[in-house]
Amino acid sequence: MRPYAFGADVGGTTVKIGFFRTDGTLIKDLEIKTNTVQGGRAILPDICDAIIKMMREADICADDVEGVGIGAPGAVRPDGTIAGAVNLGWESFDLEETFSALLSGRLEAAGLQRAETTGPLCVKAANDANAAALGEMWKGGGAGCPDMVMVTLGTGVGGGVIANGRIVTGSSGAGGEIGHIPIAEPEDEPEACGCGKHGCFEQYASARGLVNLARRYCSAHPDKESILRDVADLTAKEVFAAAAEGDAPAIAIREQYFSILGRGLASVTAVVNPQRYVIGGGVSKAGTVLIDGIAKYHEIYAFQPARQVQFVLAELGNLAGIYGCCRLVLE
Amino acid sequence: MRPYAFGADVGGTTVKIGFFRTDGTLIKDLEIKTNTVQGGRAILPDICDAIIKMMREADICADDVEGVGIGAPGAVRPDGTIAGAVNLGWESFDLEETFSALLSGRLEAAGLQRAETTGPLCVKAANDANAAALGEMWKGGGAGCPDMVMVTLGTGVGGGVIANGRIVTGSSGAGGEIGHIPIAEPEDEPEACGCGKHGCFEQYASARGLVNLARRYCSAHPDKESILRDVADLTAKEVFAAAAEGDAPAIAIREQYFSILGRGLASVTAVVNPQRYVIGGGVSKAGTVLIDGIAKYHEIYAFQPARQVQFVLAELGNLAGIYGCCRLVLE
Repeated sequence: MRPYAFGADVGGTTVKIGFFRTDGTLIKDLEIKTNTVQGGRAILPDICDAIIKMMREADICADDVEGVGIGAPGAVRPDGTIAGAVNLGWESFDLEETFSALLSGRLEAAGLQRAETTGPLCVKAANDANAAALGEMWKGGGAGCPDMVMVTLGTGVGGGVIANGRIVTGSSGAGGEIGHIPIAEPEDEPEACGCGKHGCFEQYASARGLVNLARRYCSAHPDKESILRDVADLTAKEVFAAAAEGDAPAIAIREQYFSILGRGLASVTAVVNPQRYVIGGGVSKAGTVLIDGIAKYHEIYAFQPARQVQFVLAELGNLAGIYGCCRLVLE
Repeated sequence: MRPYAFGADVGGTTVKIGFFRTDGTLIKDLEIKTNTVQGGRAILPDICDAIIKMMREADICADDVEGVGIGAPGAVRPDGTIAGAVNLGWESFDLEETFSALLSGRLEAAGLQRAETTGPLCVKAANDANAAALGEMWKGGGAGCPDMVMVTLGTGVGGGVIANGRIVTGSSGAGGEIGHIPIAEPEDEPEACGCGKHGCFEQYASARGLVNLARRYCSAHPDKESILRDVADLTAKEVFAAAAEGDAPAIAIREQYFSILGRGLASVTAVVNPQRYVIGGGVSKAGTVLIDGIAKYHEIYAFQPARQVQFVLAELGNLAGIYGCCRLVLE
């Protein structure tokens, strides 16, 4: 194994790039702006330039680098093609091949290419949520667990499934899209999910889902006093805060939310039987009360032989992606 | 790779043993009675004897055999230990290690052992449903699909998930237990599942589940005439037959059953995004009407980017297990 590797996590606003030792030590990370103009055509060249700059600063060449992993917010298929990434302006193309060719050309132009006798740099691509799960498995909350699931509770609900130590990419790159497990009948859920369906797990389990639960609870119980009624733009954080202060409706809402999370993850458990769930995203700031709440209801809904699951908080924050991207090329 | 391998699929009544070329050609298969007396202690020795007999008949020794895979009706963990198998009388033990040691000893006693310079035979164990899924991926309905799910619709609902060409065993050997996805609230389902929970997918999607749907439909619609009312011991087969003959309640019940199957499998799709579902078990005798019915509702409930799934019938019948057990040792 060569001593260094890079991970590039492409988001809609910034690209995070990590320069790693292949033992997993992060030497340096930086962010560059995501240039989405003209179909995002500058994004990959910008990443190449940033990597070459970091290589120059460290005085290394491509012979010192095992590979470069890249994560993007779209469905990345097992063959390295991406189905498109709306936030980046990308349409469908062969991400791995394109990035690999571009990087090789730029390294050569910079005089940092590999010796002719060795092959090209390894380049691997993955969906960003799946890469984050792999990162948490490698150096975060899932360390030491070859069978784990990362769940990101934010504006939406993201997921990444790791089985046998590898990302479950799925045949069209949609593995781990646990936010779209159908948990309610379409006719029972008036609002449409971002995916176009009705009744997705995400519609209840996301930060917005929690707020919707709170609104519905307050409407359905006009007689119950609650500090939540006085909040103009209610957020998940405020529901947790009110519950912590003993507000009875907030406690009931929080309990309903935990029940939905526990039941939804029990479905995931029946399919892949993970050893550990790593919970990240904005809602995870609620901390141990969230972890304990999910665990309580998972215990009720999960298949008995698969109940011995650990629930932990994510540890790498928004660096999980670069760790995972780096790990992609070390397999 | 050595030219031959064996697969042994242990069931509560018989053990099926397959003698294979390592290219997947089944040379011979046989069944022996499962001797469950005294905690099933004779089962593994009986399998060893049968294998040695087949080796003698083929005039080969252990140097010609890549390995022996064994499947059993219990949770087999990634380390090769089994949590127990009620149908066999087995309690928890190290199945892989025990079987490997026993087989080595018997081969030596028979003068068929490997030359001293080569290592011992490879022995691998798996849950029987997971092994069947691997068998279908290798030489059956899932051939060529490294990401597939086998679903067995019988007395219960069994499953096996293959991702990246490997069984998703899960941390406690309960991967692919899709029959225990919670799909109804416990309070809405009076009858308990075999696992002790209420509201499991299996309670609706199994052959018995279909019969229960039929009973409930007939009770809820006392005014509707149906030939199902005259059947004393209703079976899934009779519901499908009545629907095929145009019996309106039977058609409605069948449609409800397809909807439940489509929705349940859409949950699995959101987690692992398979390319193909392979449907086996007694209910699969309904054939293309079942396949088309599941596909119709899966399309409605599944996450859009993961909808391009193929539904096919299982092809290996009750030989799937020995194929999969053999495949275990060829990875």
